[in-house]
Amino acid sequence: MNEAIIERLLDQVRFDSDGLIAVLAQDHETNQILMLAWMNRDALGATLKTGDVVYYSRSRKKLWRKGESSGQVQKMVEICLDCDRDAVLIRVIQTGVACHTGRKSCFSWQIQGNRWVASEPVLIDPNDLYGEKK
Amino acid sequence: MNEAIIERLLDQVRFDSDGLIAVLAQDHETNQILMLAWMNRDALGATLKTGDVVYYSRSRKKLWRKGESSGQVQKMVEICLDCDRDAVLIRVIQTGVACHTGRKSCFSWQIQGNRWVASEPVLIDPNDLYGEKK
Repeated sequence: MNEAIIERLLDQVRFDSDGLIAVLAQDHETNQILMLAWMNRDALGATLKTGDVVYYSRSRKKLWRKGESSGQVQKMVEICLDCDRDAVLIRVIQTGVACHTGRKSCFSWQIQGNRWVASEPVLIDPNDLYGEKK
Repeated sequence: MNEAIIERLLDQVRFDSDGLIAVLAQDHETNQILMLAWMNRDALGATLKTGDVVYYSRSRKKLWRKGESSGQVQKMVEICLDCDRDAVLIRVIQTGVACHTGRKSCFSWQIQGNRWVASEPVLIDPNDLYGEKK
């Protein structure tokens, strides 16, 4: 996708007052929801340009290519905007797991009694995701 | 679910500095993503208590029981919190359509050339959703 087209597409997206937009990542094969994160204009532009999903880290205040530390990258298959143009759904090929806890999806906590309890298995030891690089 | 348990569960959720949390609604049968909206503590509490999905409207600054105007209600089937406790996935039974444009999902705009174009059919005329009540 050429730069002029990307800029034109970005112009039609409504980023919030902090310059951000909420992004849901969904596994393109199983339809499982993997995570919710944020993009700014540069992150969405880089995602459209490269096909590698790039988020904006609100805590670290910088672009964050998903998987840059853990190797658990996301490749864009399809991208959808919502009716208000202020949220993005991105359907991806997820290498390994999306969650830093080693679970496939970040949405792995469910109600059990009066607590939210992890309901999905750890597929990859987090030490194997981040341990050697820290 | 009794009030004390609901309060205990709400205490474990991380609402943002505006008192809000992002919520994704997913069709529990098809896994289709329907919409992204926001809840405050009261909205999440009402959802847990009643099983009817209640959001917080940032534009109208009040609770909004999904479907209260349109009849397109959502019934909670399952609710999941993410690893940071700052986003919610709610799996629902969606009556009719989730989008005010009459489409099943709000995420119905895709890239075509240099524009985001509606890629999903209108299933219910928006005039039939809101017309008579306005």
